[in-house]
Amino acid sequence: MSIFPDFSGKFITFEGIEGVGKSTNITFVAELLQQKGVEVLLTREPGGTPMGEELRRILLAHHTEEVLPETETLLLFAGRAQHVHNLIAPALRAGKCVLCDRFTDATYAYQGGGRGISTTFISTLEQMVQGDLRPDLTLLFDLPVDIGLQRAKSRTANSSVDRFEAEELTFFMRVRKQYLARAKIASARYKIIDASQPLAEVQSNLRQLLV
Amino acid sequence: MSIFPDFSGKFITFEGIEGVGKSTNITFVAELLQQKGVEVLLTREPGGTPMGEELRRILLAHHTEEVLPETETLLLFAGRAQHVHNLIAPALRAGKCVLCDRFTDATYAYQGGGRGISTTFISTLEQMVQGDLRPDLTLLFDLPVDIGLQRAKSRTANSSVDRFEAEELTFFMRVRKQYLARAKIASARYKIIDASQPLAEVQSNLRQLLV
Repeated sequence: MSIFPDFSGKFITFEGIEGVGKSTNITFVAELLQQKGVEVLLTREPGGTPMGEELRRILLAHHTEEVLPETETLLLFAGRAQHVHNLIAPALRAGKCVLCDRFTDATYAYQGGGRGISTTFISTLEQMVQGDLRPDLTLLFDLPVDIGLQRAKSRTANSSVDRFEAEELTFFMRVRKQYLARAKIASARYKIIDASQPLAEVQSNLRQLLV
Repeated sequence: MSIFPDFSGKFITFEGIEGVGKSTNITFVAELLQQKGVEVLLTREPGGTPMGEELRRILLAHHTEEVLPETETLLLFAGRAQHVHNLIAPALRAGKCVLCDRFTDATYAYQGGGRGISTTFISTLEQMVQGDLRPDLTLLFDLPVDIGLQRAKSRTANSSVDRFEAEELTFFMRVRKQYLARAKIASARYKIIDASQPLAEVQSNLRQLLV
């Protein structure tokens, strides 16, 4: 049975480390919902607006100077402020279902779990920037880190590895652990999808949840 | 008599609205101090590091989307985190005197006074990013807004007016008011320089303060 009787105005986020299949499955979910007649906005973070995409480029690029975890976090929330105000909130108000490839849970996982930024730092910014806006549903695509990274590697040329993809296995293990910890705390909002299954199984899970 | 017996490790910021002569006078002060044998680092905000300069470009540029005051504030502190950690703090530790063209007081004046961002929002970020680092001395170049803007206009082609310079008179009046209010609260750290005087007078004031 579908998780929502009506998807209009619902905010659904897709989370997980590299290689879990977020991109493939967000498109799949968009099509599923459109077939049900739901108007969908598909977007991503970092990014979503022209300025957000500029900031994404800065966030993912390699720099000659050390990039502080605090800087990453502030840049993410700067882009998020633009994204929420100029795109997400207006779409939700217009009754669309917003599907977002990563959102604030990723900041808790990557900058919090991965980089060691305190939860208080992040939650303070979350409140400042988002007010009461939180996802209605978060799909966490979960997978052992080594499998995810292997999948991600097979599709990326080594030369184009971004600043996050260049991180070590232990970084992504901290990220995954933090994602799972958050899913436990906010279990009403989170659905964990076992992304180690074959794609057909994953999409059958998604169909059960959403159709 | 000089305000500091020793300028080594001192952090001096230059503040004021457009057209007050900050750029001319920061160079003048740098030379004054170098003549005294002080090692000087001259820098600016937004900017100061390569990433800070990238963010400066984004902050000053005109955008197709609305730029939120919150976004401005977060981008300023993102650049500031880089600036403080990678440039300012190491220079101070090495015993240099850091002269900075605008710093956090400008955020209170422009984003706080000018754009209406709350003081709490700004001071929370200030604490997050700077810890205990505050300027030892802030030189506020003060001038009636209409004179400042006229001076600034005379040096800028209309076509290259940035997103801040494009603001109205009343915006800069709120900025100036906020600068003066902060100078009153933190009067031990602030020196107000009357920038409506002829340049020779202004520089005589500076010499008295610093030599």
